[in-house]
Amino acid sequence: MAGCSEFALIDDYLSGLGARREDVSLGVGDDAAVVRAPAGSQQVMALDTLVEGVHFPADLPAQWVGYRSLAVNLSDIAAMGAQPCWALLGLTLPEVNEAWVSEFARGLDRLARDSNVALIGGDVTRGPLTISLQITGFTSTEPLRRDGALPGDRLWVSGRPGEAAAGLAVWQSAAARDQASWQGLKEAFIRPRPRLSLGEALGGVASAAIDVSDGLLADAGHIAERSGVKMIFDPDRCQPSVRLQRWAGSRDAALALFRAGGDDYELCFTAPAAADRAVVAAAREARVPVRCVGHAEAGEGVFWGELRCDKNTTVGYTHFPP
Amino acid sequence: MAGCSEFALIDDYLSGLGARREDVSLGVGDDAAVVRAPAGSQQVMALDTLVEGVHFPADLPAQWVGYRSLAVNLSDIAAMGAQPCWALLGLTLPEVNEAWVSEFARGLDRLARDSNVALIGGDVTRGPLTISLQITGFTSTEPLRRDGALPGDRLWVSGRPGEAAAGLAVWQSAAARDQASWQGLKEAFIRPRPRLSLGEALGGVASAAIDVSDGLLADAGHIAERSGVKMIFDPDRCQPSVRLQRWAGSRDAALALFRAGGDDYELCFTAPAAADRAVVAAAREARVPVRCVGHAEAGEGVFWGELRCDKNTTVGYTHFPP
Repeated sequence: MAGCSEFALIDDYLSGLGARREDVSLGVGDDAAVVRAPAGSQQVMALDTLVEGVHFPADLPAQWVGYRSLAVNLSDIAAMGAQPCWALLGLTLPEVNEAWVSEFARGLDRLARDSNVALIGGDVTRGPLTISLQITGFTSTEPLRRDGALPGDRLWVSGRPGEAAAGLAVWQSAAARDQASWQGLKEAFIRPRPRLSLGEALGGVASAAIDVSDGLLADAGHIAERSGVKMIFDPDRCQPSVRLQRWAGSRDAALALFRAGGDDYELCFTAPAAADRAVVAAAREARVPVRCVGHAEAGEGVFWGELRCDKNTTVGYTHFPP
Repeated sequence: MAGCSEFALIDDYLSGLGARREDVSLGVGDDAAVVRAPAGSQQVMALDTLVEGVHFPADLPAQWVGYRSLAVNLSDIAAMGAQPCWALLGLTLPEVNEAWVSEFARGLDRLARDSNVALIGGDVTRGPLTISLQITGFTSTEPLRRDGALPGDRLWVSGRPGEAAAGLAVWQSAAARDQASWQGLKEAFIRPRPRLSLGEALGGVASAAIDVSDGLLADAGHIAERSGVKMIFDPDRCQPSVRLQRWAGSRDAALALFRAGGDDYELCFTAPAAADRAVVAAAREARVPVRCVGHAEAGEGVFWGELRCDKNTTVGYTHFPP
């Protein structure tokens, strides 16, 4: 699809990004990339699209747009318990802006190298700023699906849910953006850490998993729906972080973000109660904090203690309001 | 990334599209799809993005937008000599329009079934109408790359170059669009046929290949550049089709489309002169007409007979004019 000046862009900035991998025999620059899948593995494939003004603020620096484009995809691979390997990029740009592309490439490249991902191909086109990235990974254990939770399983989440949503608000506030006290929250939004090590360590331990992109209750609801169980949060175990409470001004306001704030890219997962120790060991191995926030029962729906949550209260963010 | 009503859209219209394949163990609806790569094959991966108003007219019916999104990607797989298997779709929509999505899905589904491709996942987001599709294929022979042409090789092209560009003009002309005499040209634009059978038959026969998306001379130029050869078209062998000449009004005007009209999605390829019979046999097996239009020599650049073509004359279409 691309014309000559686009090829120049690709060649200059998007060739050779990420890790060098021996399983890539032909990368950017042909009609398609050529790779070799490892024998005996299951291959895991995801694709996420980011639209300016919908999935990230228009003033987010290009470096962090590049980082984010890969991070949200890596998060899907993490939620499957797989290790990522190859990425293809669809980059739609309103105009040729070499400085922007160069910074975008830098942000993507850094995370790709850290994650052992090679950018093997893609397409640069003209249009409203949109990034589609497709990622492939492999797992030698059974992939972590959404439909494996059983009644009696415990419900876990990693990290500090709600901080990314607060961080977006920090970013959007001229007064708060550069204040030292809010940098931690801002980082949670700008630089989400895909939980690849945790996902891998949970292989054979967790019964179901999802990454938290829509909001904790909404995403736990996706597990509940796919698994055919009722998911019950224990409010006493859902303590928002101190800095989140400070930002939100009250525990209740912080809890709203904890429950429904999106874009955390933490892992929400279930595991049998007998696996408690294995979960804690996996988290320690991955150096990621996890906490048990509830459990699954026979039935359906998402409950906050006794209170049934309907979709309007669980969904933090939907692109098409009903 | 997707919220609840988007999931409903995906579930209703985009689940289960395309062929059923035994190598897909988990399709649309989880964080990622799970598939199994065939042992011993080389895996070929491409991604193309289509933007409304840039890659297709805003009034193209949704069915043909869906068809096209897959067709242009299949064409890349064809140009590698591979067989397609799995697709992931990034669909960005300005609003929920069930009728549009349903028609889009229908067009994509039909071609996917015909090509034995399963739609295994993707992402629906809100934003300006943009479609990114990632496709994977496999080949048991060496993939057809752009960099394998040698001096002395013949240059071939399938089908009738230039007809798609004329067909777009037919589509855009209120007077011509519904005239019976121009339906063949219009079809060439609306329904390009990815040359999968030809690509596969050319495995082990062609020395280099590309699909014609930018225009014949421009795409032959990509082979020339990657292979480090000079590509020389023989004007006597470049006869535009009769209906293309009728539409264009003169042989010269038709030739301009033949040389530089984009979006044909035919295959342009090179093969040693000793392989002439094998090329003809491959084309007969694939039931696709091919013709020899020139040859490669030591040197660089693209020549129309004696005349060197600079990039301005070879490029039919570029998204970012220099």
